[in-house]
Amino acid sequence: MIPFNSRLSTVIQTKQSHLCVGLDMNPEAMGSSQASLDTLKSHTFKVMDATHDLAAAFKPNLAFFERWGSAGFQWLEETMDRFENDAIIIGDAKRGDIGNTAKQYAHSLFTHFGFDAVTLSPYMGADSIAPFTADPEKGVFILCRTSNSSAVDLQNQTIGDEYLFDKTAQLCVQWNKNDNVGLVLGATAPEEISRVRNQAPGLPFLIPGIGAQGGDLVRSMQDGNTNGDALINVSRGISFAGDLSEKAIRDAAQNYVSQMREIQNT
Amino acid sequence: MIPFNSRLSTVIQTKQSHLCVGLDMNPEAMGSSQASLDTLKSHTFKVMDATHDLAAAFKPNLAFFERWGSAGFQWLEETMDRFENDAIIIGDAKRGDIGNTAKQYAHSLFTHFGFDAVTLSPYMGADSIAPFTADPEKGVFILCRTSNSSAVDLQNQTIGDEYLFDKTAQLCVQWNKNDNVGLVLGATAPEEISRVRNQAPGLPFLIPGIGAQGGDLVRSMQDGNTNGDALINVSRGISFAGDLSEKAIRDAAQNYVSQMREIQNT
Repeated sequence: MIPFNSRLSTVIQTKQSHLCVGLDMNPEAMGSSQASLDTLKSHTFKVMDATHDLAAAFKPNLAFFERWGSAGFQWLEETMDRFENDAIIIGDAKRGDIGNTAKQYAHSLFTHFGFDAVTLSPYMGADSIAPFTADPEKGVFILCRTSNSSAVDLQNQTIGDEYLFDKTAQLCVQWNKNDNVGLVLGATAPEEISRVRNQAPGLPFLIPGIGAQGGDLVRSMQDGNTNGDALINVSRGISFAGDLSEKAIRDAAQNYVSQMREIQNT
Repeated sequence: MIPFNSRLSTVIQTKQSHLCVGLDMNPEAMGSSQASLDTLKSHTFKVMDATHDLAAAFKPNLAFFERWGSAGFQWLEETMDRFENDAIIIGDAKRGDIGNTAKQYAHSLFTHFGFDAVTLSPYMGADSIAPFTADPEKGVFILCRTSNSSAVDLQNQTIGDEYLFDKTAQLCVQWNKNDNVGLVLGATAPEEISRVRNQAPGLPFLIPGIGAQGGDLVRSMQDGNTNGDALINVSRGISFAGDLSEKAIRDAAQNYVSQMREIQNT
């Protein structure tokens, strides 16, 4: 039995890659607001085929599947069946509910769909997280300081001489009894990445916000990857690169991986 | 065009009911862990038929549908088709993500599934809420102080002389530009209901935690319903009442409605 965080480390080292490819399959990004589900499905498979050896992880974003209801969930089921097991598959779901309900979400995401890890919201506290961390082989990435501009509304509320997101980080360190808890830190707030790294030196970080959101790749790697376990997520900048060809997608992914290796080696 | 909060008031007044029937369709609660999807589906329809004239609102809990993947979403689609339009249908989803993703969830829940309102998490701030409040006819209930015991982990962090959940309530009052924002307050923390009521006198409250969770019905009604717009949610205490017959379910719902009317009239 290998705990999730250890498996993540091994995959990152084996593939020499910190890249997480976000699958946010937006029909509008296909150059036509009328893109059909079949078009999106084949594009998803194209992105997976073009990047599977470069990506340490893939992160399907549940919202873009749920938009289509049951047909979207069928597409997600087909997508999950197609992944090879040399990458970590993270369900970007940001769930968070009381224990009884959280158990059902854990069953959905881990048992039914087969994700290796999921993203969660911490607002409801420990008992909303516990059903997802009971199995050490499955992991969670908990929202800490997110990449959007109104993240500050609650996350930067000050509690004594700390921020709310500091409390979140400290709680997550406590909740990491099974070596399977990580944090979500936005690349758009690099000073917060560094701050949280000091409070949670051992946890893996999932860092979105690179590309379309304008996050800082250099500082995300330098400050977020001090323990070697950062995943840097790029969604639109890879999935919808250039002319949307397999070559354009692969070139974009290769370019990000090369940049990350370079930053790591300087 | 009638804004969501006004429509909610009208429904509560017309039906003389503050009851929200939660549909948390747990196979284990059917007396057999092997209950099939078909059994759950017919039980859902039974609960709806038994209570439709008594309930001001129904609240399907997405987790219990997602547990079954695409087949569960088909079941949710059939459930939504069957609701009559004399009740408010709330999608208990507790979503919360960046604007681009929140738009997809809003499309899923409002446009695809056709919910009148949804529950949301406030952790990511204003831009994670805005896509759900853009249409005044659709409503949101934002998690403020929840009913679970570890709600305190983050929600009761102290900010100056206030709690985090006070800040959430104050933000929600600001976000209520279109008369379509409400709050989720747990019946298990009645003193917090009263506290938040003072800060958000005009917002509707969705109050879960009655029944299996042991919340306080009298104080929830007295303190939460000062503006007449409280919805009191009961899930297991109605859906899985007695021998699970239509009569047992209806009797349980009728009993809750009578209790609420009595509290209101004293």
